[in-house]
Amino acid sequence: MAVDRALPTPEAHDLLDLVRDIIAKEIAPRAARDETEGRFPRDLFTLLGRAGLLGLPYPEEHGGAAQPYEVYLQVVEELAGAFLAVGLGVSVHTLSCFPVAAYGDQERRAELLPQMLGGELLGAYCLSEPQSGSDAAALTTRAQAADGGYVVDGVKAWTTHGGVADFYTVMARTSADGPRGISCFHVPAGTPGLSFGRPERKMGMRSSPTAQVRLDGVRLGADALIGEEGEGFRIAMAALDGGRLGIAACAVGVAQAALDAATAYARERRQFGRPIAEFQGLGFMLADMATQVAAARALYLDAARLRDAGRPYGTRAAMAKLFATDTAMKVTTDAVQVFGGYGYVEDFPAERLMREAKVLQIVEGTNQIQRLVISRALTKDA
Amino acid sequence: MAVDRALPTPEAHDLLDLVRDIIAKEIAPRAARDETEGRFPRDLFTLLGRAGLLGLPYPEEHGGAAQPYEVYLQVVEELAGAFLAVGLGVSVHTLSCFPVAAYGDQERRAELLPQMLGGELLGAYCLSEPQSGSDAAALTTRAQAADGGYVVDGVKAWTTHGGVADFYTVMARTSADGPRGISCFHVPAGTPGLSFGRPERKMGMRSSPTAQVRLDGVRLGADALIGEEGEGFRIAMAALDGGRLGIAACAVGVAQAALDAATAYARERRQFGRPIAEFQGLGFMLADMATQVAAARALYLDAARLRDAGRPYGTRAAMAKLFATDTAMKVTTDAVQVFGGYGYVEDFPAERLMREAKVLQIVEGTNQIQRLVISRALTKDA
Amino acid sequence: MAVDRALPTPEAHDLLDLVRDIIAKEIAPRAARDETEGRFPRDLFTLLGRAGLLGLPYPEEHGGAAQPYEVYLQVVEELAGAFLAVGLGVSVHTLSCFPVAAYGDQERRAELLPQMLGGELLGAYCLSEPQSGSDAAALTTRAQAADGGYVVDGVKAWTTHGGVADFYTVMARTSADGPRGISCFHVPAGTPGLSFGRPERKMGMRSSPTAQVRLDGVRLGADALIGEEGEGFRIAMAALDGGRLGIAACAVGVAQAALDAATAYARERRQFGRPIAEFQGLGFMLADMATQVAAARALYLDAARLRDAGRPYGTRAAMAKLFATDTAMKVTTDAVQVFGGYGYVEDFPAERLMREAKVLQIVEGTNQIQRLVISRALTKDA
Amino acid sequence: MAVDRALPTPEAHDLLDLVRDIIAKEIAPRAARDETEGRFPRDLFTLLGRAGLLGLPYPEEHGGAAQPYEVYLQVVEELAGAFLAVGLGVSVHTLSCFPVAAYGDQERRAELLPQMLGGELLGAYCLSEPQSGSDAAALTTRAQAADGGYVVDGVKAWTTHGGVADFYTVMARTSADGPRGISCFHVPAGTPGLSFGRPERKMGMRSSPTAQVRLDGVRLGADALIGEEGEGFRIAMAALDGGRLGIAACAVGVAQAALDAATAYARERRQFGRPIAEFQGLGFMLADMATQVAAARALYLDAARLRDAGRPYGTRAAMAKLFATDTAMKVTTDAVQVFGGYGYVEDFPAERLMREAKVLQIVEGTNQIQRLVISRALTKDA
Repeated sequence: MAVDRALPTPEAHDLLDLVRDIIAKEIAPRAARDETEGRFPRDLFTLLGRAGLLGLPYPEEHGGAAQPYEVYLQVVEELAGAFLAVGLGVSVHTLSCFPVAAYGDQERRAELLPQMLGGELLGAYCLSEPQSGSDAAALTTRAQAADGGYVVDGVKAWTTHGGVADFYTVMARTSADGPRGISCFHVPAGTPGLSFGRPERKMGMRSSPTAQVRLDGVRLGADALIGEEGEGFRIAMAALDGGRLGIAACAVGVAQAALDAATAYARERRQFGRPIAEFQGLGFMLADMATQVAAARALYLDAARLRDAGRPYGTRAAMAKLFATDTAMKVTTDAVQVFGGYGYVEDFPAERLMREAKVLQIVEGTNQIQRLVISRALTKDA
Repeated sequence: MAVDRALPTPEAHDLLDLVRDIIAKEIAPRAARDETEGRFPRDLFTLLGRAGLLGLPYPEEHGGAAQPYEVYLQVVEELAGAFLAVGLGVSVHTLSCFPVAAYGDQERRAELLPQMLGGELLGAYCLSEPQSGSDAAALTTRAQAADGGYVVDGVKAWTTHGGVADFYTVMARTSADGPRGISCFHVPAGTPGLSFGRPERKMGMRSSPTAQVRLDGVRLGADALIGEEGEGFRIAMAALDGGRLGIAACAVGVAQAALDAATAYARERRQFGRPIAEFQGLGFMLADMATQVAAARALYLDAARLRDAGRPYGTRAAMAKLFATDTAMKVTTDAVQVFGGYGYVEDFPAERLMREAKVLQIVEGTNQIQRLVISRALTKDA
Repeated sequence: MAVDRALPTPEAHDLLDLVRDIIAKEIAPRAARDETEGRFPRDLFTLLGRAGLLGLPYPEEHGGAAQPYEVYLQVVEELAGAFLAVGLGVSVHTLSCFPVAAYGDQERRAELLPQMLGGELLGAYCLSEPQSGSDAAALTTRAQAADGGYVVDGVKAWTTHGGVADFYTVMARTSADGPRGISCFHVPAGTPGLSFGRPERKMGMRSSPTAQVRLDGVRLGADALIGEEGEGFRIAMAALDGGRLGIAACAVGVAQAALDAATAYARERRQFGRPIAEFQGLGFMLADMATQVAAARALYLDAARLRDAGRPYGTRAAMAKLFATDTAMKVTTDAVQVFGGYGYVEDFPAERLMREAKVLQIVEGTNQIQRLVISRALTKDA
Repeated sequence: MAVDRALPTPEAHDLLDLVRDIIAKEIAPRAARDETEGRFPRDLFTLLGRAGLLGLPYPEEHGGAAQPYEVYLQVVEELAGAFLAVGLGVSVHTLSCFPVAAYGDQERRAELLPQMLGGELLGAYCLSEPQSGSDAAALTTRAQAADGGYVVDGVKAWTTHGGVADFYTVMARTSADGPRGISCFHVPAGTPGLSFGRPERKMGMRSSPTAQVRLDGVRLGADALIGEEGEGFRIAMAALDGGRLGIAACAVGVAQAALDAATAYARERRQFGRPIAEFQGLGFMLADMATQVAAARALYLDAARLRDAGRPYGTRAAMAKLFATDTAMKVTTDAVQVFGGYGYVEDFPAERLMREAKVLQIVEGTNQIQRLVISRALTKDA
């Protein structure tokens, strides 16, 4: 049953209808099998790009759709509910494009954005390293000035689309000066010296490769630098604010899918002579799940509207990421429970959704980091 | 620190500024003492009525302000955070006016609403009975046709403003036909046969009288009937949908007040050489509290916007009531904890807010009834 | 780090030492790989049987060790923490032996128990059916009297060890008389008419086959009946009381393993210049996990001591199953979180433990059924 | 309905029977009124002392009963369930006697213990100060050597029995050497220079005075020192380990009382034609409450048995305090919910129990301090 969404424009309604249509025809039928077989659905990103769905929040000038985040995120939510590797992939891709779109000069934007937003160039975002995850500012990948450009050396960890992306947005250190020594680079796939670890064997999201990205004497021209030298950490943090909303939307999508599946099952499955949904024990559990999903959606939309209005939204985005992903973990775990034994086997979607939910509490800032962000905002001098 | 609210119009911003001003000058300074001494702040309702704040969601024609629920509820939230007896009192009064405003004929509206919305006539709402709380449709108070009017006999329980209100909106049975045998009546204070029990000795909200309302041969004219005979249960349920949003807004107000107090204390109080807010143990607790409050607010506003858009919103309102009041209970309990020993004594507001929060999980449908409403919506045939 | 266990006798301490030794040498080194490759460790049951560890709670007369449940369950806990398929397998096997041990006549006990408890004959327990899970008394598998014995027809679902067990303890209907029409049968593997579905593709516990058991005209002699005709449901419920304690012990083992892994990691992993365990955000999470595990262990031991003292313990066992498995789900989910990205990949044990925990909330009565059992005990006339 | 307790000896059963008898006759009938009127039940401590119930864990030589903590704590639990001011008072008194009993020399023990354990001398324990709560080692009350004895100056905060006790066990600083500069003193009521603040106006436990204790040039003889100079912090921490078990037992008592009241009400109260206990929504809530209470009791008994066996138990005691008091807060809040509106008024015990539960999360180390204690134990080198 489709969620009743309040959207700001008729155009947005049309957009959602288009998305639901593509999901029903092209995405949903493949999700379970791609996931079981660990096959990356690269073609779906091409499809989405051609349908104009990869550049939703970016300006129309370069191939975007100039949609508010409020709309973009609901598209991500629907995609994630059908196939998280796609929904999260769109969010990561959007994040990877952000530095060029927001900080790139006009030339680079004109050169790169049309292909990025059109689905030809799929992005990856390289911030974490094996020894610096939550403490991102401690990263050690170096970009040394050389021959009018840079030579980059280091190892990036946990890179979504690592090995299958067409470009890598890489944070590297141009000086020892802590967060202010970090700069942002655009690194095309195929650049000599760029290589990848074996894809991680993950609990879920198996169709979406996650891998180490190794940079071994990677030579880049001066135009690979996005923004100014030393501006990288600021760019990365700004990108993450938006990225966290993307994760929140993915979490709501996964949770809604689990709720829908559990509700449908509880209406069908009979025990003691009645559908199990009619027992308050189950019914109240479903009611709590639905309430939490509705709250999580309302919260990420609230944060998105702050962003769309040009107001500070980082703290609210951290709240949305924290709340939505904790909700997804709880709701998917309960959804498996509603199914009983059937919830624990691959024939039904519940167990896949539960495995998927867990990663969302970890990526783009663990939920502990979100709490740190929020507590600092609460306790700093106003 | 004032909550950063997204309001739909500049007029709404002015309204909120007015409310905050009245709170700071007239309400906040009295709340703790009125509450300790159990003194009903009747004058504050007069004040609010004169300031145009008692009829916010009702049409301007009869003295209302024609504000969307989205705005009205944020006013209730702010009032409740300062003094729950006032915030909840406004919500109950608004609920009590609803039948006349929505189902009364033009004559009665013109006669009653100006005084109701202007603060001269304070309302009470009489649905529950000692033996019918959650099962409201089982009520037994009888209204028998007599002399072209009615004679009403029965006992109503848990009536907010019982004994201090100027009118009572009473649901009574005009036939034995289950929910379809219930009708809605307007009963002015002072009507012979109307009397009141001793005010309940409550855990909190002690300045707001709650009492049994006894109807012993109360004679009413034909015009006391609001809507049609048999329409009472439908009116009562429609009123409750809005009333639940009012309770949700009250809960967010109480929770925000507790969060603000706890945050301020945690920034001041030092142990181990640092403000306790700087310890992650406390800081993460505050972050969770703030996140839950933000989610609860986003959810009730989401439901309110559905109502404002003329769409079905009863299920969403039940979710908002459930989530916001459970949040208020948790956040206020944690706020006491942040204060440590100081949280447990009357010198600080935390303990009062915690005692107040509990009632919100119970009134206008216990949270168990909200879960029932939601689970039925989930599992009924679409 | 080994849990500090209060054990009732020096003999029990020796037993635990033996178990820990076998785990360290024979079980722990294989668990992850057997689990990844889905290989059933049948040989480990033989090993345990030969070491005298498969018949711990049964009388010495037939090869048991006459240990109290308090000791037996702590052995199960340790095994489950190392390799759930083994710990749960021992619990299921013990459950499958229970009808013969408790209700079988002397002849059958002498014939079967030595091999059951010695590891030659591994058991499976067949109660659930595709259409009767929580409502076990609605089972439809029929055992019709024929030629001085029985012919059994039906399908059993979710059978642990289905297809690899050496005997099946089967509940089947000998009359239409509801729960009183159910009887208990011992069915050796290899009996003509007995066949198995393909093993379920499960979220976890992949080395432990779970399958449908099909009985198609299975002919049994009169001595296949355990206990009296019509006594089967009572036997099944008595068996489940003990079985639930086994599941509770498994859950504590899994949770303790997750806690140990997370604690060790948090002491090693450094961010922001310190081991992450030193941050209260992580430290308090670990403290809550440890507290919940300790409470869960104390509760199942409390129930076990009631059983060992010959007192009614079914309600307490249901509480222990409910609490311990909910704890395991929460603690393992948090353990993955402590590991961050490393928690989501197969290189570390956290994700496996989380997948394993989920099944424990479902088997031998879902946690909803446990709540039903407990609430009935609370509200029945004393 | 009396809890079915596993007690180690027939003597302990007799003891519990005696306690239940005294509760039924002398304590339970007064609890609600003493609490409402804020009247300290000093006479009940005399009664308990004469009945031999104030010195349960202390040696028989000086008037104690030489009972294991396992038994003593269950007595405290029963008392607390009937009247927290008494149960907690016994725990605080026991804590206040601990330094003399464990560290006093033979002469002082012989002089003081018989009256302490016999009910003539009621104790208070003075560790916290206005500026040092969680950071107890930062206390500033000074005890300066003078005339072969000490002069003590300072202010102690949050003292249970402050102003009504007969002696005060006071931690004061004999040198500037951090925790090692603290010493323990026995200060009889009536000592010149000892005075008290006005009793705190608390949310609950109103019959049990809590007050500041002021020491203004209080002169003590050399024999007022308990243990050695500088040993005070160690004594205080050892006392708190036992005290925390006392609080855990109180919490279980309060929670059990709330569960019993809610269960009884749910069996009586009818809605929709049935006792509300028969609805799974309520029944499952009661089942969760009962399970948590059983787990909390099992955990404190587990810690008590460690202590009784002479093994380290401080971490387990911190777990028991944390878990039991969080459980009491949750269970009492839910118990009010079961009662609905009746839960919010003083006519029923639920609201009093909820107000009482809150203080238990705060005293003798806030639950945040318990988490700190536990996390340090988990992460220190083994």
